[in-house]
Amino acid sequence: MPRSFLTTADWSQAELQALLDDARALKAEPRQSRLTGKTAAFVFFNPSLRTRTSFQVGFAQLGGTPVVLDAGGTWPLEFAEGAVMDGDAEEHAKEAARVLSAYVDLIGIRAFPKFQDWQAEREDPLLSAFVAHATVPIVNMETIVHPCQELAMLMALQDAHGEFARKKITLTWTYHPKPLNTAVMNSGLLATTKMGMDVTLLVPSEAYLLDPMFMEQGQRFAKENGSTLTVTTDVEAAYDGADAVYAKSWGRLDQIGLPMEERLTPPEFKRFIVDEAKMALTNDATFSHCLPMRRNVKVTDAVADSPRSLIIEEAENRLHVQKAVMSKLLGAL
Amino acid sequence: MPRSFLTTADWSQAELQALLDDARALKAEPRQSRLTGKTAAFVFFNPSLRTRTSFQVGFAQLGGTPVVLDAGGTWPLEFAEGAVMDGDAEEHAKEAARVLSAYVDLIGIRAFPKFQDWQAEREDPLLSAFVAHATVPIVNMETIVHPCQELAMLMALQDAHGEFARKKITLTWTYHPKPLNTAVMNSGLLATTKMGMDVTLLVPSEAYLLDPMFMEQGQRFAKENGSTLTVTTDVEAAYDGADAVYAKSWGRLDQIGLPMEERLTPPEFKRFIVDEAKMALTNDATFSHCLPMRRNVKVTDAVADSPRSLIIEEAENRLHVQKAVMSKLLGAL
Amino acid sequence: MPRSFLTTADWSQAELQALLDDARALKAEPRQSRLTGKTAAFVFFNPSLRTRTSFQVGFAQLGGTPVVLDAGGTWPLEFAEGAVMDGDAEEHAKEAARVLSAYVDLIGIRAFPKFQDWQAEREDPLLSAFVAHATVPIVNMETIVHPCQELAMLMALQDAHGEFARKKITLTWTYHPKPLNTAVMNSGLLATTKMGMDVTLLVPSEAYLLDPMFMEQGQRFAKENGSTLTVTTDVEAAYDGADAVYAKSWGRLDQIGLPMEERLTPPEFKRFIVDEAKMALTNDATFSHCLPMRRNVKVTDAVADSPRSLIIEEAENRLHVQKAVMSKLLGAL
Repeated sequence: MPRSFLTTADWSQAELQALLDDARALKAEPRQSRLTGKTAAFVFFNPSLRTRTSFQVGFAQLGGTPVVLDAGGTWPLEFAEGAVMDGDAEEHAKEAARVLSAYVDLIGIRAFPKFQDWQAEREDPLLSAFVAHATVPIVNMETIVHPCQELAMLMALQDAHGEFARKKITLTWTYHPKPLNTAVMNSGLLATTKMGMDVTLLVPSEAYLLDPMFMEQGQRFAKENGSTLTVTTDVEAAYDGADAVYAKSWGRLDQIGLPMEERLTPPEFKRFIVDEAKMALTNDATFSHCLPMRRNVKVTDAVADSPRSLIIEEAENRLHVQKAVMSKLLGAL
Repeated sequence: MPRSFLTTADWSQAELQALLDDARALKAEPRQSRLTGKTAAFVFFNPSLRTRTSFQVGFAQLGGTPVVLDAGGTWPLEFAEGAVMDGDAEEHAKEAARVLSAYVDLIGIRAFPKFQDWQAEREDPLLSAFVAHATVPIVNMETIVHPCQELAMLMALQDAHGEFARKKITLTWTYHPKPLNTAVMNSGLLATTKMGMDVTLLVPSEAYLLDPMFMEQGQRFAKENGSTLTVTTDVEAAYDGADAVYAKSWGRLDQIGLPMEERLTPPEFKRFIVDEAKMALTNDATFSHCLPMRRNVKVTDAVADSPRSLIIEEAENRLHVQKAVMSKLLGAL
Repeated sequence: MPRSFLTTADWSQAELQALLDDARALKAEPRQSRLTGKTAAFVFFNPSLRTRTSFQVGFAQLGGTPVVLDAGGTWPLEFAEGAVMDGDAEEHAKEAARVLSAYVDLIGIRAFPKFQDWQAEREDPLLSAFVAHATVPIVNMETIVHPCQELAMLMALQDAHGEFARKKITLTWTYHPKPLNTAVMNSGLLATTKMGMDVTLLVPSEAYLLDPMFMEQGQRFAKENGSTLTVTTDVEAAYDGADAVYAKSWGRLDQIGLPMEERLTPPEFKRFIVDEAKMALTNDATFSHCLPMRRNVKVTDAVADSPRSLIIEEAENRLHVQKAVMSKLLGAL
């Protein structure tokens, strides 16, 4: 089976560093012929702006031919082995994965959880079914983790801070009216602990902890690197002395499946907004957040537009790191 | 007027065989420069996974530039000559076809019937309007027939059986909860009779016969080839001694236009599922079905996953046969 | 800041003529390597057939890699500086524009007004926000003006009439059941006066006048060229002696924001249809209209299909003029 890029947790620190190094080479020389004659299908079960553009542009800049598929506009897929398909699903992922593998050299998948049954969704069933049946490498374009985003964040952090070891990063929950996917922060936790940063996870309450499998992976990576992973609800302590602040909002896992009106974020948590007062507690920290990003709700304009903001660098890096990942998976790195 | 690929009925047995032969050459050597500098517009009035991917990838692999248009997201088209366009339609197919012809070298059209008025729909009005007004070749990507699917099926059958003459193929209706398009089986009938196979069409009742124009074309092709086309409702007789089984579900033509709740398939027809017991009656027959395919409703897992199943080969062949068809239409074969 | 193509009003008569000349060179030799290695994002907030196809095909024919983004299927954008983004908008145009600029070399934007608040919409807020924040050239693919359409019209007119000076063109409002965007006629007025034609604008009543900013720009261009811009409600006077007739329907600006049932076009205005009787009053005028075009509502078949009809030429010219514009913006002309 070919190797896929499903989560950074599967890749060693040295392998991730090699991807970051190649991403910098690709930033310096964006047009290369590494993937001439190759084709890729980027399959979107959820809408996208940056991901769609950066994967298409990146694959084409390396000489390949990208095809984008809006799977949301087609039919539901079945994942379960042996299913009697008398419901909505018209097609089994088994066929979809095998046929796409016959047409293209690489498959990208974006498929958010439906946020209805976390016990099933935490198994990432759609991605897992593609991995089980495809015969070409797969890139996770965001499911329950978002490894390309975290690689882009790592590249921006390393460009700004030089090295990861002993740097203190605060991963802060921030306000958003609706409960969002945990994928980006799951990946943020995995990536920063993997690279040996001292990580503080700031949440409004224990109810906002990430899934135990990610918390445990993060603790293990921190232990392997002799670094720390600390969880806190104390805003001042979390920002105090931080070298980097990374913000994201997400919904409580224990509320998945409830009616949306019971899942709205309590207004008192608006105080988690990343603002100048909090940033003043840090060690002149850099700030970042994946996009899209609600200004003056998740973060103030003053922080988002400060010279220490890395939001545009991180977003731009998506292009470079994804080209490095696809090159690696297709044996062209 | 340039030649188009609208139905296999318009192409001789020798011409179809030449397309199959070229498809095999393209399977062996997928990247060629036959269509360098050419452009194509693939226009989808209905969603698609395989068709969209295989046409884009195939056209690009031959050096051309494909453009995909989701026409379902734009405006309704008018087809009738002289129409006073004061209804929903904002544009006449006359303009759409002529303008696309000015931009690209080839047009692909997917446009299912609306299943509201078969007497009008059996004339394939949208495709016919494009054919009347376009000045570049047109490929039927599925309307009331699906000639690319049937070419792909023929390629898989020929690879498995060596030759068509005297081989017995059973085309069986199979269960699906909702009434589906007849296009694939219309084409299945036309293709297998055209190539000289002995064809048995198995239906639940006379009400499920295909449109007389296709039944008559099939009878004519069988007669020309000295082969047979038999219609039956007897399951055992149909499977007995078959070399190949091809399954598809479709809706009754006489129910088109009725409310959907009156068109649902009777549950007693679930017995038409292709299963091991029925396949045991055959001459170790191959099995195939176009995709998508509801597992354990239309066909059991055991049959779909058996070594005699051609479903993935047939789906993969879409890529190769379509490249052969487009090469032929653009003078590059 | 790189130069953008937002409205023909920003470009001198000589510059527009240079674009038309290059468009003719590109029509004669469509495949060139001017944009090899370049990428473009064509962002559609509204559906499109011709624009989507012609921009993709054109950019690819010059060697570049186009990416199409259906922004309508993603999330609403915020435009206002300093906005507290606690409403529907998930992302600020500031980020979208800067990130796209990091991925591609050129951005095309289609974004119609929402026809709810003309005082705000006449500022073209989405396009303006992209212009303010993007760092690559932008092409207006239709917002409150449609400069690519008017360039295509100018090319067709010049091919038919040889020169613009002293040629009399009648820009006529025509019937459509619903109130449409004024963009095409705004641009029609700007382009024809800019090139020195004698322009007559025929409207059902003063309520149908275009926005004063466009009327004033048109008057200024006419004055600069020593030509005329005349407004009339007299159909016979408007057609009398015209060399060219250009038709388009649009809605009353003072009704924007009212419920749609109060904005429907009065049936008595069906008399503005362009028909043979009116064309008989002209100096054997050419006729054109952008597409889509409701036949026998806006114009009769006899006029649309006459040898003096330029509708297909104008639509085809979209491909050529857009290639010229993109070449110019990317320094490849």
